[in-house]
Amino acid sequence: MLQAALADGTAHRRCVFEVFTRRLPPGRRYGVLAGTGRVLEQLAAFRFGTPELDWLADAHVVDDATLEYLAGYRFTGDVVGYAEGEVFFPQSPVLVVEGTFAEAVLLETLVLSVLNYDSAVASAASRMTSAAVGRPCLEMGARRAHEDAAVAAARAAVVAGFAGTSNLEAGRRYGLATIGTAAHAFTLLHDDEEAAFASQVRSQGAGTTLLVDTYDVRRGVERALAAAGTALGAVRLDSGDLAVQAQEVRAQLDAAGAHDTQIVVTSDLDEYAIAALAVAPVDSYGVGTSLVTGSGAPTCGMVYKLVAREGASGAMEPVAKASRSKTSVGGRKGAARRLGADGRAVEEVLVVGSDDEVARWTRHRHHTTEDGLRALHVPLVVDGEVMPGLTAAEGVRAATARHAASRDELPRGARRLSADEAAVPTVELPLA
Amino acid sequence: MLQAALADGTAHRRCVFEVFTRRLPPGRRYGVLAGTGRVLEQLAAFRFGTPELDWLADAHVVDDATLEYLAGYRFTGDVVGYAEGEVFFPQSPVLVVEGTFAEAVLLETLVLSVLNYDSAVASAASRMTSAAVGRPCLEMGARRAHEDAAVAAARAAVVAGFAGTSNLEAGRRYGLATIGTAAHAFTLLHDDEEAAFASQVRSQGAGTTLLVDTYDVRRGVERALAAAGTALGAVRLDSGDLAVQAQEVRAQLDAAGAHDTQIVVTSDLDEYAIAALAVAPVDSYGVGTSLVTGSGAPTCGMVYKLVAREGASGAMEPVAKASRSKTSVGGRKGAARRLGADGRAVEEVLVVGSDDEVARWTRHRHHTTEDGLRALHVPLVVDGEVMPGLTAAEGVRAATARHAASRDELPRGARRLSADEAAVPTVELPLA
Repeated sequence: MLQAALADGTAHRRCVFEVFTRRLPPGRRYGVLAGTGRVLEQLAAFRFGTPELDWLADAHVVDDATLEYLAGYRFTGDVVGYAEGEVFFPQSPVLVVEGTFAEAVLLETLVLSVLNYDSAVASAASRMTSAAVGRPCLEMGARRAHEDAAVAAARAAVVAGFAGTSNLEAGRRYGLATIGTAAHAFTLLHDDEEAAFASQVRSQGAGTTLLVDTYDVRRGVERALAAAGTALGAVRLDSGDLAVQAQEVRAQLDAAGAHDTQIVVTSDLDEYAIAALAVAPVDSYGVGTSLVTGSGAPTCGMVYKLVAREGASGAMEPVAKASRSKTSVGGRKGAARRLGADGRAVEEVLVVGSDDEVARWTRHRHHTTEDGLRALHVPLVVDGEVMPGLTAAEGVRAATARHAASRDELPRGARRLSADEAAVPTVELPLA
Repeated sequence: MLQAALADGTAHRRCVFEVFTRRLPPGRRYGVLAGTGRVLEQLAAFRFGTPELDWLADAHVVDDATLEYLAGYRFTGDVVGYAEGEVFFPQSPVLVVEGTFAEAVLLETLVLSVLNYDSAVASAASRMTSAAVGRPCLEMGARRAHEDAAVAAARAAVVAGFAGTSNLEAGRRYGLATIGTAAHAFTLLHDDEEAAFASQVRSQGAGTTLLVDTYDVRRGVERALAAAGTALGAVRLDSGDLAVQAQEVRAQLDAAGAHDTQIVVTSDLDEYAIAALAVAPVDSYGVGTSLVTGSGAPTCGMVYKLVAREGASGAMEPVAKASRSKTSVGGRKGAARRLGADGRAVEEVLVVGSDDEVARWTRHRHHTTEDGLRALHVPLVVDGEVMPGLTAAEGVRAATARHAASRDELPRGARRLSADEAAVPTVELPLA
């Protein structure tokens, strides 16, 4: 595409690409945008190096003119989008990329890969933290996702309210709180459970979390208390009927005077299992597989569509594919959430009009709420420069706060787990 | 775990960890091991650098003795495993890692992350290439997976028989065949479809693949033929009822004399959609979302379990968690596939016995078939050195060949898509 467009001159036409999803996963009521900070980190560094250019040349993938273009590639356009952590609905234009065709089309795979995965994880994570009703959720899924995806998953989970992660690399990279417990292998390594617990307490202090289900839970708890006393931080249960076991272990701990010793549960938890444990005496949830695989929806289905481009006359023109099954609305869209008198979301509003009008409306309304419309697009990249505060640990902190506020703004009932339509309808608001 | 084990001396106990899955995804009849080459590439380079060590120190994650151990970390143990591309069943010990506890436990997350994701993709891909019955499948899922997972997915798809990938980075890294077609954006960028097609044919030659469903398929095909003539390489259909459209387009192409122009279909294909198109005049399938998300099973559920370790006496002892719901067989296992008289698999055989006996059996039987038992464990790492031929492009080529042979060896009916039990049972064979 790039080679042909460079040759015919259209590569330099100004273009607007929008990122949106046509539908939410079945039964889901909202999605959570995550990954924007990661997109921006990579966009700022997006270059074609010598190994890549040499391979493209040797494999005859593109011609010399295209290689030359790629060697000098740098995104110099603009990006606006929903703030990371914001909830979204079908058709929500969560990211709008504006630049020449050549500049913008090269970002498609990067943008979609990051947003589709990170948002899938955050969307599942938000349901889990809702179901946990204030009890901490801990991310422990590194082993069930690609090794780098796992780092992104930990970050996305924290955006959606997870309290910490066992992924140390994610902690290092994004300033996340890290946690950890021992595995069964640690107990099995030792000659007996007593030796394993004693060693762990010596190394980590009585505040550590001891895994008590390697052999027999009741005796495991006895040995844990023998090793750490009533100052024991927590015990972890990783198998069996967690609700029943948590009751029994709580009673056993209380009977021994270990009222402050907490109970952490793990073992293929998802949002439904977490909800089912709401009445059990559980203090925190460790979640792995279902989190990092989006709990049944491992990708978001976001697409990156050309919605407007400079025509032969130099004016911006709306464009859209005309097929029946994949309808897309042409033209640049602004975005706002209409809030009711109680401050809760009523509608997702797509602001439509001429390209100039919508662009002006978006610039004017960045970050503001007027007439019950909270504008959703914030500037992310201006003339190729990434705006400050959106990346690394700072970006994650802001996104976590944004998600909490955005989720609180949803209509009552929007957070229930049972299958239903999108929590608010998506409507169009013509500017003219 | 590492810190406590270093402090109490057990970190230096010799250990055997096995990687296996307790069950296949619901209805699946076999799994496909992929990612071994990637594990070995990363294992050879697995070190803790200054940024990681500084962060671990600053965040007080581990003590000074542990930091010192990590700074000098290098895996010096042994790994055997199923050849990459081999099919596997519940309990198949696809990888066996032997080393000190400290050495081996640090590899858990790396090994599982890679194998769980890559094998999930390859397991789905194998069903797709089976369903395609010889027609090429093309990997196009980069935008629906984490940006680095996407590269691994392309590699895993090729291991399981995919003919090529649109992921250029995967092509560069692993020597995979790369393919590509234009997106709707390329057509929409131009003033009309004629201009877009003419530009693409000028740039790529008549052998290119033109996307004909941006506006109207029939007129799209007319314009494609007008631009490229009957030498047109292929047309791509990406929406609508693909079976009906493929019939219509084939008739239209044939009527125009374009008998050699192929039809590529894409649009949320999975193994079932591919099977449903078996009688349609389709020449190749482009598969995205369902491939890179494992077609409903986005992770394999493989675990990394300590099965034997040096005891206080210095002898190796089998160990296993004793919980009811997660039964694991303790002790090192050898592995073989029992073949019937027709050369087809009959049983997955776990060879059990004392640690020495099994280790000796495994060493003796590497790569051989005797008495109807095809030994499955091959040496991957010896004294910390990765065996040659297993990584990069060479490793992928070998894995692709291995998968084709291994799948051909399955019992008749094992490749059907409908839900059923594992294609062969897993049994134990005591050596004594």
